[in-house]
Amino acid sequence: MKKKKKVNAAILIIGNEILSGRTQDKNIAFISNWLNINCGISILEVRIIPDVENTIVNNIRSLSKKFNYVFTTGGIGPTHDDITAKSIAKAFRVKYGYHKEAYQILENYYGKSKFNDGRKKMAKMPVISKLIYNPSSAAPGFITKNVLSLPGVPSILNSMIENCKKYLVRGLKVHSNTINIFTVESNISKQLEKIQKKYQKSVDIGSYPFFRLGKIGVSVVSRSTSKQKLKNVNKDLIKVIKDKKIEILNI
Amino acid sequence: MKKKKKVNAAILIIGNEILSGRTQDKNIAFISNWLNINCGISILEVRIIPDVENTIVNNIRSLSKKFNYVFTTGGIGPTHDDITAKSIAKAFRVKYGYHKEAYQILENYYGKSKFNDGRKKMAKMPVISKLIYNPSSAAPGFITKNVLSLPGVPSILNSMIENCKKYLVRGLKVHSNTINIFTVESNISKQLEKIQKKYQKSVDIGSYPFFRLGKIGVSVVSRSTSKQKLKNVNKDLIKVIKDKKIEILNI
Repeated sequence: MKKKKKVNAAILIIGNEILSGRTQDKNIAFISNWLNINCGISILEVRIIPDVENTIVNNIRSLSKKFNYVFTTGGIGPTHDDITAKSIAKAFRVKYGYHKEAYQILENYYGKSKFNDGRKKMAKMPVISKLIYNPSSAAPGFITKNVLSLPGVPSILNSMIENCKKYLVRGLKVHSNTINIFTVESNISKQLEKIQKKYQKSVDIGSYPFFRLGKIGVSVVSRSTSKQKLKNVNKDLIKVIKDKKIEILNI
Repeated sequence: MKKKKKVNAAILIIGNEILSGRTQDKNIAFISNWLNINCGISILEVRIIPDVENTIVNNIRSLSKKFNYVFTTGGIGPTHDDITAKSIAKAFRVKYGYHKEAYQILENYYGKSKFNDGRKKMAKMPVISKLIYNPSSAAPGFITKNVLSLPGVPSILNSMIENCKKYLVRGLKVHSNTINIFTVESNISKQLEKIQKKYQKSVDIGSYPFFRLGKIGVSVVSRSTSKQKLKNVNKDLIKVIKDKKIEILNI
């Protein structure tokens, strides 16, 4: 069996509605969680950009070189502001036009008489792309080289994500462990730093303040591809918490 | 009176917890809305990156050149993974150390006896920075050249944002207008494109599908710095909707 390696990806959110603050993004957390749990792929960068061709082209070029995969969301619908497919074709300098299989899927779904120009547009994409099937509303996503393009509507994206799996090389899953305690960050910052230094190469330790029922707390989150290392970090953390007589909310 | 121009900004979210999907970001929409309404500043790019020094340095350098302002969130607390201030100093090649005014604020807030090393760390930043006061938890944000650094905890960030105002040049506010109708995008895509072409330089028209009580709808959102142009677009849109006998949810 081939030994698994670290596999990474970026997310490129294409859409003025997210940038302007009109719409609250829900896709980043969903894609990131799904990729880690199901494929062992870690998201290392997210960018949110407007529906502007040059901006999309430049970002596709730089992110597709920098990461193993790029997931785009948004801009693959039937209207004039849906320019993701065209921009990806331009970024990779490949032909943009009707994708035969996508055309067939959409024509079957709508029926010949209702298959108007707007709907036909959703069959236009880089002709070299392979399809990501859409069980909700037929219009497929597509993968072009290492770039996977999905729609922006969360419910439709969620229904399609399983169909990305066959295109992805699996990597090492990142496991995580959270300890929620009632204290302030500055009370444990020295000790956390010491533990982080001890496991510098294998475990990432983060601390995040929270407020709960008027009390201040800290979530200490450890993340690693090694379950054993996580267990060791956990032991060290619990020792600090007990030594300092800090109240534990949950582990 | 000086005529206002378009002023833009980027947001740089620094934090493994957002990238991993553990935490749902709430700051992007808040900052973007606040900046547009209060300062006439438009967010044109958002990036989410991990707590890695080199990555922060590179992003600060490229975004601060590309946009009028950069807002960073996260990484300014007392723990080892809070490296935003240090990385910004490195990006601009300026001295990193105790900021006298910040030190004073924090010492007064905690009292000398409780002002430990973790808390003192929050007074360390680029020494050339000016402070962004924090009415919730004392530890100040700071502005370094055109980069404004705020904490990641939404409630604290929200309480501080007003204190950014004095550092910002105001631009033209973008007004928006939304029409929600019950139809599918492909039914109006041709007409939207025509209207968009007519107002290519002055109005951005976007269409976003929604589902409500089992019915499919479309939000047509127009955005412009000119209220008059928005009114004109609105008239054209309503004509299309009436011609096509499309049911209106609200305008």
